[in-house]
Amino acid sequence: MDFKRIVDSITNTNGKFADQAQKRLDSLTKPQGSLGRLEEFAKQLVAISESPAPALDRKVIFTFAGDHGVADEGVSAFPRAVTQQMVMNFVNGGAGINVLARHAGADVVVVDIGVDHDFTDTGAGSSIPLQIKKVVRGTKNMRKGPAMTRQEAEKCIQVGVELADEYAQKGYKIFGTGEMGIANTSPSSAITALITEKTVEDITGRGTGIDDATWKNKVNVIKDAIRINSPDPADPIDVLAKIGGAEIGGIAGLIIGAAANKIPVVIDGFISTAGALIAYLIEPKTRDYMFAAHMSQEVGHRALLNRIGLAPILDLDLRLGEGTGAALAILVIEAGLKIYKEMATFEEAAVAERSST
Amino acid sequence: MDFKRIVDSITNTNGKFADQAQKRLDSLTKPQGSLGRLEEFAKQLVAISESPAPALDRKVIFTFAGDHGVADEGVSAFPRAVTQQMVMNFVNGGAGINVLARHAGADVVVVDIGVDHDFTDTGAGSSIPLQIKKVVRGTKNMRKGPAMTRQEAEKCIQVGVELADEYAQKGYKIFGTGEMGIANTSPSSAITALITEKTVEDITGRGTGIDDATWKNKVNVIKDAIRINSPDPADPIDVLAKIGGAEIGGIAGLIIGAAANKIPVVIDGFISTAGALIAYLIEPKTRDYMFAAHMSQEVGHRALLNRIGLAPILDLDLRLGEGTGAALAILVIEAGLKIYKEMATFEEAAVAERSST
Repeated sequence: MDFKRIVDSITNTNGKFADQAQKRLDSLTKPQGSLGRLEEFAKQLVAISESPAPALDRKVIFTFAGDHGVADEGVSAFPRAVTQQMVMNFVNGGAGINVLARHAGADVVVVDIGVDHDFTDTGAGSSIPLQIKKVVRGTKNMRKGPAMTRQEAEKCIQVGVELADEYAQKGYKIFGTGEMGIANTSPSSAITALITEKTVEDITGRGTGIDDATWKNKVNVIKDAIRINSPDPADPIDVLAKIGGAEIGGIAGLIIGAAANKIPVVIDGFISTAGALIAYLIEPKTRDYMFAAHMSQEVGHRALLNRIGLAPILDLDLRLGEGTGAALAILVIEAGLKIYKEMATFEEAAVAERSST
Repeated sequence: MDFKRIVDSITNTNGKFADQAQKRLDSLTKPQGSLGRLEEFAKQLVAISESPAPALDRKVIFTFAGDHGVADEGVSAFPRAVTQQMVMNFVNGGAGINVLARHAGADVVVVDIGVDHDFTDTGAGSSIPLQIKKVVRGTKNMRKGPAMTRQEAEKCIQVGVELADEYAQKGYKIFGTGEMGIANTSPSSAITALITEKTVEDITGRGTGIDDATWKNKVNVIKDAIRINSPDPADPIDVLAKIGGAEIGGIAGLIIGAAANKIPVVIDGFISTAGALIAYLIEPKTRDYMFAAHMSQEVGHRALLNRIGLAPILDLDLRLGEGTGAALAILVIEAGLKIYKEMATFEEAAVAERSST
């Protein structure tokens, strides 16, 4: 894979298409602009697809799973084995992401990009495939050294790019990101602190629900990881390798691949947005293809969204991850597209437009 | 109709059912509380329906339409005829509410409760019925006297209560409110100013999109209407009659009827919430049955929601009305119910629960 060529192929979306969409939106039987962000979503979809009538008939959420060496530092409320157990829950259709993806009419693809477990059951009989794309068997403990080598970090991004290509070719029209990985708010907070220059205390949250003592320990672990590894903020691959995680790299790659394929990608919560930041730092034009699903309850999420320049669609105090917020947001984005495509114009409906006075 | 008996029959929801729902939510394969407001919606639905497994298989949005004498004062950007034209747009399926209700799997019922037009086509061949329940042919100009008589206001509420009974008996499981009426942000602002004791300037917005001069005029008109009519804030029917509107009364009645039938009701935007406030002032227990769909771009909406004590589900800069926000919010509420009903428990999925340490 020629990664540089793929990144170089990414363009900003073309404002001409958004303008054309605006013209149609303004001809529909409603006061101009009265459907607010729904209209914005429709415009962005038209601009991304470069089509006057984009379709979202095939949707898919990618749930990237990976383990984290830093879990050894006691930063999470759940044991590490939960990562692999939840992967099987995804494949069996019983997790939150399964429920919400079904609700949104989206498929789920589970990607083992770094789980510390060899899966024998890859969901052959399930409608939810488990793609084995293992780059690492869990990252190394970032408190003691780099989480991954630079080569491993690049490989994670490559996995995401290739999945984007594969599902673009299969005819999917919108992607959502998701993740599972016990302890993965720790690398996400480390990336956020380093790049947004906020204090670790300010952007470190409670993850799956830790107590005060565990939170203080988590803050110290993150500070140590940044200090010991000295990742270069100007080099996003270095950041991903030293204080990131496999699923964060996969998400970054998926977003880069989505942008290269001109496919909209809905970013889930805190960890997914850490991946989106890596993609954005590699190529800022990727932002044109992003939708921020929601404002997570994880305290660092706002700083990440601000750094990229994204406004979240939903704010429902979610903090589950997996892609759950992305699935819900896809339903809202799709509502905007349907408004654009299905509403009658003033002329068609014989409704008077606003007075000239 | 014995209105007093109906109001007296409304009870608070039973916390025992919410507690039972919480127990199940905490057994599902996710960190406790990590699905935030989705869990809250599920609990509220369980408490309202008093069933461990509520269903939302039949959904309906009621779009109440009425004209307003105060439109003569030049408070709107659109001519008055748009009310009746939009009613036919609803029946023909081309309006925003039609698109979003289809997206949410909800039916739309259009109610002529006060349109200044005799409809000959009541949608016999359409899947969207137009119910003729006309109480007035437009309200009177509230700048010159009461918008309606007390008897008319009571009749509007009765229309809403009877529709709630009818659709409860038909097996509908959730209602949404909506409205159409050129100039109807003016009575809504008047009600808001009177009841929340904010200044008229603070809670008067741009409606369908008026300019500065029209806005100043609108503020003066609303002030005059309150001064001339002196509605009694302690008497919600008096408020509805003197400075309200037919569709606002219909919505208030629908909510009272929903609560009496133990059916959840999703309140749309600013005008719908003015109706919800009338219902709440008549019987505060109705609040237990309400969901606030969204935070409207109309500036007075926040004061109304605060007065009732409702937290909006969505915030998408919508200001169309019709029930559009309610339709979208129903999809999110339903997501919460599906989480509650469809997710696997820790035991079922063989996933480890949080560490005891």
